[in-house]
Amino acid sequence: MRNLALALEYEGTAYFGFGIQPGLPTIQGELERALRTTLGHGVRVTPAGRTDAGVHATGQVVSFRTESKLDVAAVQRALNARLPADIVVRRVIEVPEWFDARRSARSRRYRYSIWRGEQRNVWLRRTSYHFSGHLDLDAMREATEKLLGRHDFAAFTRKWGEERRRRLSTVRTVFQAEWSNEGQLLHFDIAADAFLRHMVRTIVGSLLWVGRGRLTPEQFGRLLEPGTTTLAGPTAPPHGLTLTGVDYNWELT
Amino acid sequence: MRNLALALEYEGTAYFGFGIQPGLPTIQGELERALRTTLGHGVRVTPAGRTDAGVHATGQVVSFRTESKLDVAAVQRALNARLPADIVVRRVIEVPEWFDARRSARSRRYRYSIWRGEQRNVWLRRTSYHFSGHLDLDAMREATEKLLGRHDFAAFTRKWGEERRRRLSTVRTVFQAEWSNEGQLLHFDIAADAFLRHMVRTIVGSLLWVGRGRLTPEQFGRLLEPGTTTLAGPTAPPHGLTLTGVDYNWELT
Repeated sequence: MRNLALALEYEGTAYFGFGIQPGLPTIQGELERALRTTLGHGVRVTPAGRTDAGVHATGQVVSFRTESKLDVAAVQRALNARLPADIVVRRVIEVPEWFDARRSARSRRYRYSIWRGEQRNVWLRRTSYHFSGHLDLDAMREATEKLLGRHDFAAFTRKWGEERRRRLSTVRTVFQAEWSNEGQLLHFDIAADAFLRHMVRTIVGSLLWVGRGRLTPEQFGRLLEPGTTTLAGPTAPPHGLTLTGVDYNWELT
Repeated sequence: MRNLALALEYEGTAYFGFGIQPGLPTIQGELERALRTTLGHGVRVTPAGRTDAGVHATGQVVSFRTESKLDVAAVQRALNARLPADIVVRRVIEVPEWFDARRSARSRRYRYSIWRGEQRNVWLRRTSYHFSGHLDLDAMREATEKLLGRHDFAAFTRKWGEERRRRLSTVRTVFQAEWSNEGQLLHFDIAADAFLRHMVRTIVGSLLWVGRGRLTPEQFGRLLEPGTTTLAGPTAPPHGLTLTGVDYNWELT
């Protein structure tokens, strides 16, 4: 059996997220349909990150096994011819037997983009969240630094959610978290070993509360303490979020 | 009566062009509907350029008369609250009585964008035409220079079209025409006193024929000679085209 990995880019606007849902358009559904026709057999793909409905990707990675003898360039051409215009396969890579896009991933990177212009941006409206009100970026940066390192992020996912029910750990390690400006766009970049469901968007929603003075950086820090009962801020809308990359110990070159 | 001008931006993907068409979504239809509610009376707007179905604008200008006493900031806020997400009013300007967005315009500027990457671009797919084949840019530039100045552009609009039937002039003056690169995007910028229907797209389609060796720069030049019977190239698809600006002798500041 060969083991293949795909580097994928997609605009999530039209999809109910990555993971397959019967009768609904999903990235996985489109991808597995295109793979079935290309490879001549059914395939189940494993993604590095299961992006939610409306979330985009510039650096998603998926892996799957196949008996097909098609070379990687032919697989890429065939998939891009069959996939809809809002999904594109950037690379097809022959990977070692042990490689698994999800389990082998060392870290995931996400970007949340906020359009700060007074009027909406017609061109970036699908890939950025429009917020033109005042934001105290110094306070936001002070709070953001508290994210770095190993913390319990239970406050940033659904209370009584799947993690708690299944007694899964809500501890994650954040390697990078920072804000940057690109013209009137404000970007939040975050990298961690893994993310809980809605974690990035709830961090962003809470940091926007800090920026608007509804939460102090200290109160934000308390959300990261074990057994916190402080309520996190709201979950920011999905269309500002993009999975920008996945890092492996083994270079996908 | 006050005379107002609007600077408009829109993504044309969802519209059957600027000009109103009963029962079909058009930019003019959306705009006049929002104006009617905002001003309290029906309005007919005059655009600087009637963009075709699927064509975008970053610098469209329209003008109209109104009895309303609303200040320009309030008009802008109300229109942006009522217009769909793919249309935005960038500015509202109080203009002199004699100003007419169409008749006062000294020149119009258009940009046609071509994505040259091997794979499609998910993010620019609505605003650029994907063409990854070889192009002889030197030959295209040689042909492009021939556009400058005053010429009969009859070959670049519909044969036996409205102009001919109504004995309208097909002579136009091109002030600027040039190609530039921005990463893997290739832009064609053209400015003229006015444009015939489909003129920019047919110029681009013909220049792409030059780039592909299907037409020499000399043959392209012959399309501009009076009484030409040479057939122009195909009309390039609308989604690569954007009306980027309109110039007036009077500065819209």
